[in-house]
Amino acid sequence: MNLPSVDKTHSADLASWVPSALGHADFPVQNLPFGVFAPAGERPRIGTAIGDCVLDLCAVGALLPPEVLPLLELPELNALMAAPRVVKTALRHRLSELLSDDAHRPMVEPALHDAACVEMLLPMRIGDYTDFYVGIHHATNIGKLFRPDNPLLPNYKHVPIGYHGRASSIRQSGVPVARPRGQRRANDADVPVFGPCTRLDYELELGVWISEGNALGTTIPIAEAGEHIAGLCLLNDWSARDIQAWEYQPLGPFLAKNFHTTISPWVVTAEALAPFRIAQPPRPLGDPDPLPYLRDEADRMAGAFAIELSVWLTSEQMRAGRYPPLRLSRGPASNMYWTIAQMVTHHASNGCGLNSGDLLGTGTISGTEQGSKGSLIEISEGGRVPVELPTGETRTFLLDGDEISFSATATAPGRAPIGFGECRAVIRPAP
Amino acid sequence: MNLPSVDKTHSADLASWVPSALGHADFPVQNLPFGVFAPAGERPRIGTAIGDCVLDLCAVGALLPPEVLPLLELPELNALMAAPRVVKTALRHRLSELLSDDAHRPMVEPALHDAACVEMLLPMRIGDYTDFYVGIHHATNIGKLFRPDNPLLPNYKHVPIGYHGRASSIRQSGVPVARPRGQRRANDADVPVFGPCTRLDYELELGVWISEGNALGTTIPIAEAGEHIAGLCLLNDWSARDIQAWEYQPLGPFLAKNFHTTISPWVVTAEALAPFRIAQPPRPLGDPDPLPYLRDEADRMAGAFAIELSVWLTSEQMRAGRYPPLRLSRGPASNMYWTIAQMVTHHASNGCGLNSGDLLGTGTISGTEQGSKGSLIEISEGGRVPVELPTGETRTFLLDGDEISFSATATAPGRAPIGFGECRAVIRPAP
Repeated sequence: MNLPSVDKTHSADLASWVPSALGHADFPVQNLPFGVFAPAGERPRIGTAIGDCVLDLCAVGALLPPEVLPLLELPELNALMAAPRVVKTALRHRLSELLSDDAHRPMVEPALHDAACVEMLLPMRIGDYTDFYVGIHHATNIGKLFRPDNPLLPNYKHVPIGYHGRASSIRQSGVPVARPRGQRRANDADVPVFGPCTRLDYELELGVWISEGNALGTTIPIAEAGEHIAGLCLLNDWSARDIQAWEYQPLGPFLAKNFHTTISPWVVTAEALAPFRIAQPPRPLGDPDPLPYLRDEADRMAGAFAIELSVWLTSEQMRAGRYPPLRLSRGPASNMYWTIAQMVTHHASNGCGLNSGDLLGTGTISGTEQGSKGSLIEISEGGRVPVELPTGETRTFLLDGDEISFSATATAPGRAPIGFGECRAVIRPAP
Repeated sequence: MNLPSVDKTHSADLASWVPSALGHADFPVQNLPFGVFAPAGERPRIGTAIGDCVLDLCAVGALLPPEVLPLLELPELNALMAAPRVVKTALRHRLSELLSDDAHRPMVEPALHDAACVEMLLPMRIGDYTDFYVGIHHATNIGKLFRPDNPLLPNYKHVPIGYHGRASSIRQSGVPVARPRGQRRANDADVPVFGPCTRLDYELELGVWISEGNALGTTIPIAEAGEHIAGLCLLNDWSARDIQAWEYQPLGPFLAKNFHTTISPWVVTAEALAPFRIAQPPRPLGDPDPLPYLRDEADRMAGAFAIELSVWLTSEQMRAGRYPPLRLSRGPASNMYWTIAQMVTHHASNGCGLNSGDLLGTGTISGTEQGSKGSLIEISEGGRVPVELPTGETRTFLLDGDEISFSATATAPGRAPIGFGECRAVIRPAP
């Protein structure tokens, strides 16, 4: 598989003249993610995060490779991300120079905006959204709750299980989530009732942005899957567990999931992530080999990522009492049974056409240990074991006013860590 | 529920000066569906079907209500269908006059194209596509095959079951379908194999076009659902039964369905269908009442449609031998447990935002009798009972070269019947 290479833009020695970029948890000059932002009262445009600032790419258009300019015209990344890798790499190299070489500072600095004063928007025009289920420990944990005798179904280790989600409900970090209403049926009841969800949950996932698509009726061989991946984001697949339990058979989750999905607004590019690629964790002894269409030696050796993911909760009482957010879990993104390349290849293996701007969720990423589970239904063991908050409150599921925030850091020996920015939202009462 | 009314545009006495419109099976002057077409070598535009012709609406723009003109600018119906009903009704009335009053013939006739010489395209820019499962006899029939002991799950009579489908795979009638490849596992095998689908099937459905959407976090009360329905089309939810059986648990169908979906290209409007509304068939004794959010007296009295649906098969040998298409099934669209208004209201009941141009499939519409089943898996009883073709060939599932075509007619006493146009596609070998 043809993957982006590690080059001088990744050097830990590289320093930006933007003061806040030095040692920035998410956006040092080694990251250079792309997004769409709007300065107060102005129209949206494409930008790059650097420290606590956002660089307006159009405003420095004269300094960029000329082939990039037509790709910046619309306030969406679809065209830019679908460009050949050579174009995207040239842009990355140029941005790295512009933001690290003091000589460029006079021309570039006026195009910087304070990130706290701009509005971030969805980075891509999303055609279709698909959610996978590749977090094997989550699949096992939640499978036990829904099907105690049969947690991991026989297809799981052969098929990267996925299903279609709702593109129109995806919102960028910061947009509040309205508690959904829906049908639920108590275990001891004959008939369902309709009302506000009583078991509202989050799911910790990575999102995968599609760069270039494939035509309907064609496939994406796994050796080429890397060319179709623009980059990653954080994704919160908000889930109404009571609605889900009642509606999901036989066709899968529907209203339990499609009321809202939150993503972090920056596309952390495949190029930026090159130094953080690691081998796919070996399959446990006795597990089947992937079928040939999902097998690729380069993917096996470098298809996973050294990214640590965390989930943070802040209740309304915690905010009022100025408590810091409580970390609910922490775990590595390598807890995935299938790689993102295998997800892409499987998705197109029947001729399904993907498009630039399509979004794939990995499914919830959980670990096996305590403190590494990516949803409350796992942490609370189906609502039986409450989590204690520093205020003395407890939670099995989310209450109105709770805020969930995800963070993530990619690390590698000798490399400057890079992060993903914020993926957070607060729960509002059912309207 | 506020439904379109029956008026003079529906009169059976109305006759068009377009000769082929008189007694036309699909497009008499009482229908006036909207679509997007391209004359040979020209750019796409919005049109209306009349007999064997298509009227270019932009070309007669000077004769139309002026408020309509801005809605015709793009080659998609999204803006026109999202317009207030008063605007759409005014357009319908004007088109009815222009195409029936001889005085307008000299101005209008030059804007007619021979339907055989234009290319039809997708009528709407489709944001999200959702497939429901409201054909109760299909749900029972197919439930028996997948879950013999448990065909209709406990939620079926409470929840209009639906799931998200793939918007990017929807194509207009006439576009060939490539046989998908995928994973399947034989009943007696331990491991799956990957290859061309061996149980390729169609599913007979109606498609429901959303006119005006709702904002994320808001709902569509059932009394208002009618305002959000632009019209109907025919929809073939092509299905790979072997892939489906292996992949569908626990999250529902994915690659078994998303390789291709065929729709008829004309939006038969809610206004055109006003005379063909009928009462929802009464629920069998003992069935639960719908929960209050799905209950509406006007919908119960007029939420179904008197539409007869047919499925036709033509094999390659049949085409070579000039046999007429074989009718595989015929049945009424009233074989739906939930109305299209209930589908829309349920979909938005959790705050999920619908958008103009979203498409909802009803799910397969089957009857209880022989000859009324909407898929081959039902007709062949899971592949055990072959269908005999006039050439002496037999089919349990579709072979390469087979063409499936749907047709439909809405009828009511004293009314001119109207139809939907063609929804057909031929199966091409796996690439």
